[in-house]
Amino acid sequence: MNTFGRVFRVSLFGESHGRGIGVVIDGVRPGLPLSVNDFKTDIRRRAPGAYGTTERREDDIPEILSGVYKGHTTGAPLTILFVNNDTESGDYQLFKDTPRPGHADFTASVKYLDFNDPAGSGHFSGRLTLPIVAAGVVAKKMLSFDVRASLKEIGGFPVHSGSSVIPSSSVIPSSSVIPSEVEESPEEALPDGSIEEKDASWKEALAKAKAAGDSLGGIVECVVKDVPPGLGEPFFDSVEALVSHAIFSIPGVRGVEFGDGFKAARMKGSEHNDPFTPTGNGWAKPVKNGAGGINGGITNGCDIVFRVAFKPTSSIARRQETFNFAEGRLAGLEIPGRHDVCFALRTPPIVEAMTAIVLADLTLLQ
Amino acid sequence: MNTFGRVFRVSLFGESHGRGIGVVIDGVRPGLPLSVNDFKTDIRRRAPGAYGTTERREDDIPEILSGVYKGHTTGAPLTILFVNNDTESGDYQLFKDTPRPGHADFTASVKYLDFNDPAGSGHFSGRLTLPIVAAGVVAKKMLSFDVRASLKEIGGFPVHSGSSVIPSSSVIPSSSVIPSEVEESPEEALPDGSIEEKDASWKEALAKAKAAGDSLGGIVECVVKDVPPGLGEPFFDSVEALVSHAIFSIPGVRGVEFGDGFKAARMKGSEHNDPFTPTGNGWAKPVKNGAGGINGGITNGCDIVFRVAFKPTSSIARRQETFNFAEGRLAGLEIPGRHDVCFALRTPPIVEAMTAIVLADLTLLQ
Amino acid sequence: MNTFGRVFRVSLFGESHGRGIGVVIDGVRPGLPLSVNDFKTDIRRRAPGAYGTTERREDDIPEILSGVYKGHTTGAPLTILFVNNDTESGDYQLFKDTPRPGHADFTASVKYLDFNDPAGSGHFSGRLTLPIVAAGVVAKKMLSFDVRASLKEIGGFPVHSGSSVIPSSSVIPSSSVIPSEVEESPEEALPDGSIEEKDASWKEALAKAKAAGDSLGGIVECVVKDVPPGLGEPFFDSVEALVSHAIFSIPGVRGVEFGDGFKAARMKGSEHNDPFTPTGNGWAKPVKNGAGGINGGITNGCDIVFRVAFKPTSSIARRQETFNFAEGRLAGLEIPGRHDVCFALRTPPIVEAMTAIVLADLTLLQ
Amino acid sequence: MNTFGRVFRVSLFGESHGRGIGVVIDGVRPGLPLSVNDFKTDIRRRAPGAYGTTERREDDIPEILSGVYKGHTTGAPLTILFVNNDTESGDYQLFKDTPRPGHADFTASVKYLDFNDPAGSGHFSGRLTLPIVAAGVVAKKMLSFDVRASLKEIGGFPVHSGSSVIPSSSVIPSSSVIPSEVEESPEEALPDGSIEEKDASWKEALAKAKAAGDSLGGIVECVVKDVPPGLGEPFFDSVEALVSHAIFSIPGVRGVEFGDGFKAARMKGSEHNDPFTPTGNGWAKPVKNGAGGINGGITNGCDIVFRVAFKPTSSIARRQETFNFAEGRLAGLEIPGRHDVCFALRTPPIVEAMTAIVLADLTLLQ
Repeated sequence: MNTFGRVFRVSLFGESHGRGIGVVIDGVRPGLPLSVNDFKTDIRRRAPGAYGTTERREDDIPEILSGVYKGHTTGAPLTILFVNNDTESGDYQLFKDTPRPGHADFTASVKYLDFNDPAGSGHFSGRLTLPIVAAGVVAKKMLSFDVRASLKEIGGFPVHSGSSVIPSSSVIPSSSVIPSEVEESPEEALPDGSIEEKDASWKEALAKAKAAGDSLGGIVECVVKDVPPGLGEPFFDSVEALVSHAIFSIPGVRGVEFGDGFKAARMKGSEHNDPFTPTGNGWAKPVKNGAGGINGGITNGCDIVFRVAFKPTSSIARRQETFNFAEGRLAGLEIPGRHDVCFALRTPPIVEAMTAIVLADLTLLQ
Repeated sequence: MNTFGRVFRVSLFGESHGRGIGVVIDGVRPGLPLSVNDFKTDIRRRAPGAYGTTERREDDIPEILSGVYKGHTTGAPLTILFVNNDTESGDYQLFKDTPRPGHADFTASVKYLDFNDPAGSGHFSGRLTLPIVAAGVVAKKMLSFDVRASLKEIGGFPVHSGSSVIPSSSVIPSSSVIPSEVEESPEEALPDGSIEEKDASWKEALAKAKAAGDSLGGIVECVVKDVPPGLGEPFFDSVEALVSHAIFSIPGVRGVEFGDGFKAARMKGSEHNDPFTPTGNGWAKPVKNGAGGINGGITNGCDIVFRVAFKPTSSIARRQETFNFAEGRLAGLEIPGRHDVCFALRTPPIVEAMTAIVLADLTLLQ
Repeated sequence: MNTFGRVFRVSLFGESHGRGIGVVIDGVRPGLPLSVNDFKTDIRRRAPGAYGTTERREDDIPEILSGVYKGHTTGAPLTILFVNNDTESGDYQLFKDTPRPGHADFTASVKYLDFNDPAGSGHFSGRLTLPIVAAGVVAKKMLSFDVRASLKEIGGFPVHSGSSVIPSSSVIPSSSVIPSEVEESPEEALPDGSIEEKDASWKEALAKAKAAGDSLGGIVECVVKDVPPGLGEPFFDSVEALVSHAIFSIPGVRGVEFGDGFKAARMKGSEHNDPFTPTGNGWAKPVKNGAGGINGGITNGCDIVFRVAFKPTSSIARRQETFNFAEGRLAGLEIPGRHDVCFALRTPPIVEAMTAIVLADLTLLQ
Repeated sequence: MNTFGRVFRVSLFGESHGRGIGVVIDGVRPGLPLSVNDFKTDIRRRAPGAYGTTERREDDIPEILSGVYKGHTTGAPLTILFVNNDTESGDYQLFKDTPRPGHADFTASVKYLDFNDPAGSGHFSGRLTLPIVAAGVVAKKMLSFDVRASLKEIGGFPVHSGSSVIPSSSVIPSSSVIPSEVEESPEEALPDGSIEEKDASWKEALAKAKAAGDSLGGIVECVVKDVPPGLGEPFFDSVEALVSHAIFSIPGVRGVEFGDGFKAARMKGSEHNDPFTPTGNGWAKPVKNGAGGINGGITNGCDIVFRVAFKPTSSIARRQETFNFAEGRLAGLEIPGRHDVCFALRTPPIVEAMTAIVLADLTLLQ
């Protein structure tokens, strides 16, 4: 099922190896200013080219097929298409016979029998997160508040870079480290001085993993500031239920936790409970925010805070053991092509998009 | 929204303080044998009375209003009602004025304005998990495989008791520890010898928390054995997306992780990837199962494995600080009544039910 | 599937022969005054007892299980239960073996195989229109405009009684005609003088059909006045699409037409087109209203007008030929019990309810 | 809302004046042979060029963007795109100021305020029935039985041409009548002899309406043969409810009736009831089929039969009175361009498509 949402509804279409991919968005408010330029920042944040991501170039320019007239949304369904320029093919019979460990090659093969289209991993490709990011840009325009995701950990090492929410561009290393790649995305290069010393650890880990033909996972944190209280529709459409549904749709997610998360299971009630603290105007709200901004499935006026665990990239350069199902024997596999060392680096705009899509829907339902 | 599922659909109704609560289940296969007795075990596993759970007695007998004829399901919608015998009231104006920290009192009040029904916490009550458990019993009958959840941690201490999946009844301590409660549920009492020495830690933690008027959280693990490969409908209805949606609908969940979970974010690709290992018949499957039985959102033939973090019970006996919104000032609050020291102890049948509901729906969609 | 609607959602439960039937309503605005008395009028309009309807007595008192607190809706799901007092049984093995012509006995038997519950016609019973009427009462409270259905034809004879929209009580004949039944519902009896001479035809037809052990069909017209322009969500959720979906869910409907209806297919464009006529304030609207208040699936500010064709009651007293599927031979059938001569007489509140449910949903979506 | 269906799901996208329009289809069975050629016949049946339809040329070639691999469906979502070659513009500010009588110009303007995209009538255009027809071709491939719609009446005159179900190509007149148009679609021309004398009336009516700058309506009948008994999901997803929902989504429909339809309201039960008649193998079925193949919302094994009333084309050549909303005064309007004299002529493949889409969904649900 490629549709999500009740009133603000997102329907994906297409495959990475076909003619193109895209999204149909229902429930868009009429009169929002919208142009192709609005998508640039988030698409670039998701794009490869940064340190630790695949060097493959993609030319991701959205085409607005419907729903916009003279620069404003019309209220009719909004359709965005991305033409596939860089359709891959060739290696995929290989992956059908000898499925890549950690990939969907095997399960897709089981599910879609002999008719599975192996080229480009079909509907399983991470490329489908591109129209998600585009839908997120539209969803953010529907909201009066800010949704912001950033990396907290890479390969187990903290990512700090100043404030608690780092701009995604700060994960681009200085030109002194990887000069060639900075040339690929010069507009995102930062002056040396802005790279904090304390971020050295994860950068070193990335460099080592790359050299070893290996990959790393990461943890992304999403914070929604100034979200109004009262969003969420228990029993089954609590904020956590909908957000986790959307987030676990992103390929490679292994865990989602809100507020104190798994740590809460090791806390006492007296520690985890959050007393209402006066805000100075005869009103009060929780301050520790171990609930991540949500009580009983409904926003409580604090920031929504949750973290997402991304696994390490499955496609690694070094040789792996797998099984040749065509011949019924063990086989070695070397995955050709270029791949992200840590695809989690590209996920903050995807996490933001999914969150904004859910919150736009809940806002309309409210 | 109180409905979940696409073909196997579950709709909750009722409130803890009203006349009754229940569930309507669409998509039930005709001809399944079903009687009131089938619900007893899981309802008892959810019931209070065990060590660490509230001592309040509830008399939870399901009434099958429709969908069953001469002991078999008819294929028409199945309706199950639980009459509320023990409707609470009285203290709830208190909680409207001075909301309980960690509870939905505040958010419900914001969302439903002046018309919120405070008695019994309305639609937010954990009592709605009772019809969920009943729906889970029906869902399990639809499945050819086993869904089993059990506690892995209480208050940070491991729960072992032999096999990796402990029967929920083993969390009932021996009569030597809490004699009076064993009398309340004698059929679940275990001989002293079956209580492992190594489980002493969490039992001691429970006893201490109870004595201190405090509460503990816990972690539940769910394992689905012999699940066929191919279940799951990407992009938005991946197994993880639907399971997490259902699980985060349970009140008090703070996190969900599959397979290696958050640990995966700290692993290398070469560690987390799961080589296909021969099964001896010209076939192969993953063995480390760090993916928790799912690749690309689709079951891969391994056990589905996930863990759920439950927060400590919000309602604690000891005095807490909160805010009196009626009077605009800080206030102390002592929550009257009896409460679970660790409500996570009652959640394994709820986690199983939610999982079975999702898998019954995915099986019908397949 | 027993659920209808997107935001204002109605879920039916129960069967005519079981413990009870009812409805869960999601999306109710909090703060609406609501009591059991509010349901009386529409339930009585649907009840048997009037001339031409079955004489069977039912005691249809709604029980509000949830969603109302101190006389006002809370915004949480609203549940209404009708206990079945008059559960029928006994004749239904007969109808399984020798299905009643025109009934769902046969198709239910095919669909639900051997597990079909034949007692009371299971989920197919017209009794399920009772909770629909109750949901309609709640839906009408959500609307700022008036939904009114009335009979236009019985057995091919026009029903006039004064205004174009007759009150349903006027179908009750004077005491001089059927004294015993007027005693059953004395509050609806009308003085002789109010029965128009011109309505004599359909009354005579009803009396003749009753005497002959036969039945009649009828046509109901529904008019929604003062409906705001702009309701309706093309492409698939046009007003006509949703209304017809809801109306064709009522057992016994054979046709639905809007505005000029089937007559439009025989008109020229210059006749059917509706010029915009000035309303005197610099504005204009259509006046002929052959579109029935809807253009392009969206309300245009005129009254919504549509007609519904109801077949004659299937259960007739006179002997019919059918087939005995148990014995594989033709068989005569005399259906025992009391039945409506013209069940269409009881349908106006059902048609109103379905319409109000759709419009409440579209209003919330707007 | 541009999505329809539960398991076999159809989502439309695009607008007539934008870059293109299309459809995403979920729930397609893997392994179905499918190529661009499969769409030709139904697309041509819907295309203008035949007698009585607009002379405008459209070049409707479907592009399969996803879901097909080496000529077979993969089971992943199937996307079909039609690029708009003949995007209209220019006259639409005119229609915003002086809305065309009978069109959606006015309601679209009200609903989407100032941001409505008037060019090409946006999401309201009949051109959206083109991807519907394409989805219908895929749906028909899912079915084991035949769905066939044909014209029964044009402008009130019967369309016979031999069998009760005429092939749509027979509505194309011989070259002797309208030579120029036959040149436009020579492959559909029929030898003179195949045009029945008795069809002269409707052809004459069409010619007269065209000469007068006027238009005609029509009635289409759809027959589904060999449909298995047991399809349909009461209460709300009865066959009639879903079919009428889909059919009333087609622009210009004024009525839908099943079996005896509105005539049933004027029949006696003894006339309308359908005795089960032996089929010779110990089984029996209804023969008069006044129920149109459906009892209690479920197919009974007879042909599904229903009729659809289409209004006359709104856009007529002759001058009409309307209102100039920009200037607040009455205004004359002459609609430029070429238009169908009777667009009902183009609707049989659309009616078939909608019906096949519903039945594919019900078959998967079964």
